[in-house]
Amino acid sequence: LEMESYKHFLAVLSAAAAFGIVSIIFVLRWVLHYREGLAWDGGLGEFNWHPVLQISGFIFLNGAAIIVFRLPWTWRCSKLIMKFIHAGLNLAAFICATISFVAVFDFHNAAQIPNMYSLHSWLGLAALVLFCLQIVLSVIIYLMPFSPASWRAAFMPLHVFFGRSLFGSVIAVALMGITEKLIFGLSNPKYKDSPPEAVFVNVMGVLLVAYGVAILWISTRTSWKRPNDLALHTQHTSGGGEDNIKVGSSLSQLSDEAEAEGHVDVRRRGHKLDDQAD
Amino acid sequence: LEMESYKHFLAVLSAAAAFGIVSIIFVLRWVLHYREGLAWDGGLGEFNWHPVLQISGFIFLNGAAIIVFRLPWTWRCSKLIMKFIHAGLNLAAFICATISFVAVFDFHNAAQIPNMYSLHSWLGLAALVLFCLQIVLSVIIYLMPFSPASWRAAFMPLHVFFGRSLFGSVIAVALMGITEKLIFGLSNPKYKDSPPEAVFVNVMGVLLVAYGVAILWISTRTSWKRPNDLALHTQHTSGGGEDNIKVGSSLSQLSDEAEAEGHVDVRRRGHKLDDQAD
Repeated sequence: LEMESYKHFLAVLSAAAAFGIVSIIFVLRWVLHYREGLAWDGGLGEFNWHPVLQISGFIFLNGAAIIVFRLPWTWRCSKLIMKFIHAGLNLAAFICATISFVAVFDFHNAAQIPNMYSLHSWLGLAALVLFCLQIVLSVIIYLMPFSPASWRAAFMPLHVFFGRSLFGSVIAVALMGITEKLIFGLSNPKYKDSPPEAVFVNVMGVLLVAYGVAILWISTRTSWKRPNDLALHTQHTSGGGEDNIKVGSSLSQLSDEAEAEGHVDVRRRGHKLDDQAD
Repeated sequence: LEMESYKHFLAVLSAAAAFGIVSIIFVLRWVLHYREGLAWDGGLGEFNWHPVLQISGFIFLNGAAIIVFRLPWTWRCSKLIMKFIHAGLNLAAFICATISFVAVFDFHNAAQIPNMYSLHSWLGLAALVLFCLQIVLSVIIYLMPFSPASWRAAFMPLHVFFGRSLFGSVIAVALMGITEKLIFGLSNPKYKDSPPEAVFVNVMGVLLVAYGVAILWISTRTSWKRPNDLALHTQHTSGGGEDNIKVGSSLSQLSDEAEAEGHVDVRRRGHKLDDQAD
């Protein structure tokens, strides 16, 4: 990476980290200071695990997983280790999301509130099921040694597109959930009277959007991609001058084109180009 | 475009059109059949213009604008005409959104409901202001003859990224608005009792998400990009065989790389490469 591009990367990464961490602090302050705290008793304290686990788990960890290949200080690590970190973060996000669903179903059942009536619940459950499907398919295709390179290349545009789409959708579903909770949870003063809690949680919603935009900006800059292993190898063996960076860039471009098409001629790519995101 | 890729394009385009048009039919049926119809009298009939204009205007027209360059039957039209269509659709979307905002402010003021208290209103107003900023900057940069090619290239990644982000954000804001309206508007039976209107409008929300995903899929496939004018010219003059398609593809790739970087050396591109989205 050129120095200017690297500084830009660090600036956006710092912003994303700040938005994400401050969102987590906000959701904790929301449930601990303004609401009933955390518990596992079928009451409001159990419900409160729902926003806490969605924001710190499903949203924050999934966002981290999306950009983990782009951290330049990981480019010397093997691709396989980075894939395990990516998969592990997403699995942790999925576990948080699942516990968070259990919390809200338990709370509804104890309070005799119907389940699955709202658009928030429909889209949230759809996102969880599709996220699970994405994990299962991706583990089979990218982590099982028997899966052919042609599958890996053909599935990559779908993996990347639906990964980003699910990340954005989960933030949208969270914004709907925040809206529901502020309407149902605030009375005297109501949401429309803008008590401090309403303003505080609205700001949290804005922070979540900012986190999403920063993560998607990082994940869609072609010049911030992890160089593939062949390009890194070339850099190692010949000292990593400017010429080698160009080689890396043109290889990465070849692999971009291949994956963007979705129907790559694998024979042309050979065995040296590993599966690469766009 | 290869025949297989063209069929895939037509399938996704048809799906997007179907999701978008059925969403518009749904919002019309919602306000005309389940709600108070349309009027401009400060009452609920005026409020109802808000969802109608957001879905048929801000969301549907903005989505159409995003993919208009990718319709293969427009590739023989001049780039300038297509830019005017893209700008015109976005301007129409902005006008619909603005009228839609006036409708909801009028309704709130007449009913003495506070304005701008909800996360929905905060994010919706932010999206409208940023959409306006995007239009103004883009008209200056891409439609004014005096703006230098270096600006056009440097701004393109931002134009494309924030265009897509705003499109996705407006759908998210609409989902929050639908949630608010179903909670406030339904009583006896309430939203949680799942009356037919609640299920009907939830389905509309799912259709909006499907429209958004289909539009973003179309707009992010590199192989469905409009060939730039030089590549088209080459195809015209030599008959358009397979070699020329490769020229077009490699030029488009060059231009992709340039724009993805965000800091392109314009001298290298020359005057023949027009501004191209990624």
